Amino acid sequence: MTDDYTYQLDSLQEFTFSLFKKIGCVDEHAKLSMEVLLSADLRGIDSHGLARLSGYVRLWEAGRINTAPTIKTIHETPSTAVIDGDGGLGLVVAPYAMKIAIEKATNSGTGWVAVKNSNHFGIAGYHAMMALEHDMIGWAMTNASPLVAPTFSVERLLGTNPIAIAVPANKQPPFVADMATTTAANGKLEILQRKNKDAPLGWIQTKHGEPSTNPHELKDGGALIPLGSDYEHGSHKGYGLGAIVDILSAVLSGANYGPWVPPFVSFLQPPSDPVGEGIGHFLGAMRVDAFRPADEFKNHMDNWIRRFRTAKTTEGQDRVLIHGDPEREMSEIRKTKGIPMNPKVVEDLQELSKKFGVIFKK
Amino acid sequence: MTDDYTYQLDSLQEFTFSLFKKIGCVDEHAKLSMEVLLSADLRGIDSHGLARLSGYVRLWEAGRINTAPTIKTIHETPSTAVIDGDGGLGLVVAPYAMKIAIEKATNSGTGWVAVKNSNHFGIAGYHAMMALEHDMIGWAMTNASPLVAPTFSVERLLGTNPIAIAVPANKQPPFVADMATTTAANGKLEILQRKNKDAPLGWIQTKHGEPSTNPHELKDGGALIPLGSDYEHGSHKGYGLGAIVDILSAVLSGANYGPWVPPFVSFLQPPSDPVGEGIGHFLGAMRVDAFRPADEFKNHMDNWIRRFRTAKTTEGQDRVLIHGDPEREMSEIRKTKGIPMNPKVVEDLQELSKKFGVIFKK
Repeated sequence: MTDDYTYQLDSLQEFTFSLFKKIGCVDEHAKLSMEVLLSADLRGIDSHGLARLSGYVRLWEAGRINTAPTIKTIHETPSTAVIDGDGGLGLVVAPYAMKIAIEKATNSGTGWVAVKNSNHFGIAGYHAMMALEHDMIGWAMTNASPLVAPTFSVERLLGTNPIAIAVPANKQPPFVADMATTTAANGKLEILQRKNKDAPLGWIQTKHGEPSTNPHELKDGGALIPLGSDYEHGSHKGYGLGAIVDILSAVLSGANYGPWVPPFVSFLQPPSDPVGEGIGHFLGAMRVDAFRPADEFKNHMDNWIRRFRTAKTTEGQDRVLIHGDPEREMSEIRKTKGIPMNPKVVEDLQELSKKFGVIFKK
Repeated sequence: MTDDYTYQLDSLQEFTFSLFKKIGCVDEHAKLSMEVLLSADLRGIDSHGLARLSGYVRLWEAGRINTAPTIKTIHETPSTAVIDGDGGLGLVVAPYAMKIAIEKATNSGTGWVAVKNSNHFGIAGYHAMMALEHDMIGWAMTNASPLVAPTFSVERLLGTNPIAIAVPANKQPPFVADMATTTAANGKLEILQRKNKDAPLGWIQTKHGEPSTNPHELKDGGALIPLGSDYEHGSHKGYGLGAIVDILSAVLSGANYGPWVPPFVSFLQPPSDPVGEGIGHFLGAMRVDAFRPADEFKNHMDNWIRRFRTAKTTEGQDRVLIHGDPEREMSEIRKTKGIPMNPKVVEDLQELSKKFGVIFKK
């Protein structure tokens, strides 16, 4: 990555906001979509940021994303709600649902919102972190197009189905875990593809279910492997976690699940026999002081974080990582020094710039 | 395992019930403890059943388990509660807490109960499954004595911290995931120790953090490894999951967390600088029809389960497993044919039988 492809945050914000406006978003939705997408680039999760912008646009062009959705609560109890996203951008629908989860938690201690009829929601961590300023623990999950083979399956039946959980602390920064339930997320394969490097064994299998190191294997019908890599090392546990994300996000909400989840790419058609509507998310918020006084909890979180961060490390390692540390540090750097972009993504964005007449500059 | 060590369920029930009575449990608690413990033996999770009975007894002898606890709700909101287990058996405290979670869910859609001042609660799956007959999704987690080293740590800071989630279906049996957040649970090491076999790489590390295949490594200061096996294969994700279980079970409830969790074995003293009380659990119940009609949900679960179970398998495998299938099948067999016991466990139980004057027979 050379300096030639480093872009300043405010330029990218302007461009992204204008682009979402051009495809029919109202100001509020364009701003939110921009924020969620760029939070990924800032945090170093490049696969989920602007790299996906052209994908959203193509789905909109294919009539598969509604950029002017009427998002509705279709069922609720004091601590739960189900939201129909009206085919909107997940970037807009998920924060809407998370706000409801936070409201429910304010009134009832916790709030849990299942979402159907939505689309890709960016990084799960963004939505989970919305809870932090309210002294709540935030949860976010989503299902996704089937790229993952359960243990002993050659068929791809699950998405990379991430789980994000954000926990507030006091003087320490928050604990923010945001993880695909696979050994490696698809973004990591894309990096290897660009570098022409092999993947480690345990990340992917061929279409016959044999171990593979070819990062292009998915194009040939291969699959990602659940966290654990193989049965002996617990891949059935990663499969179980991906299954739970699928069930909470989609079977509970009325979205498509398992192999019926519609693909993110516009050149693949959604299954002709849907079992629900769109893709599904699951968002949650737990008020800390619904359990114990917030200050007490946050001081103990400080103690937890300090103890783990200062643990004795294995040879050659600086420190034991706390979840959220690397992303926060990356975010601080990129806010001031700019965001290094992949040349292919820059090309993509230049095309969008031309097509929609939106200025794209450093 | 020979037939000589196969015991009938009703004999084991009688023995276990009487034994719990002898150490001070009232009838109701003795029955519950017996049921929870034996559910592990029935389901084939031998490490968490009668194999642990003498451990509980020794902790009671050491004054570290209160078999006549006054379990109290110390804080609550419409969808949450915190329970003080009064140092009781986790086998009793956790079902008590789960009942409150189910009540809360009945009234508010979901119920979430954090527990402090408890002890080992047996298998997580038992508690999660309590929700099923109410058409609820059940959750159960617990922290445990530190045997697991986070990614890049040589110190043991986490327990095997299991997560269990049980989901009702209609004609299909329920989906029941019950998993330690490590590559392999301690029980699997114990099996290798008895068989004098090496462990696969990726399960354990030495006290210096180097990979090891010695199943006795933990006695020499080594550690279990989080699900994922190494950083390249996502062990930071398993570490994240174990951390979340620790935070929800203990930081939220006021129990001991991380390296401060008291050991299950009576010959090791609890840390002299506790950060909370006892060990912690986290239980949850979500009413399915707080989201969508229960029948609709359960029919889709049937469809989900059927689709996954009948997926095309990798070479040499019969079927793609659904979580809960192996344990349920084992349970059916053992209910009728008896439970094969490990000879060392039988010895243990014979000693207890003698010491407490309780008949132990096949």
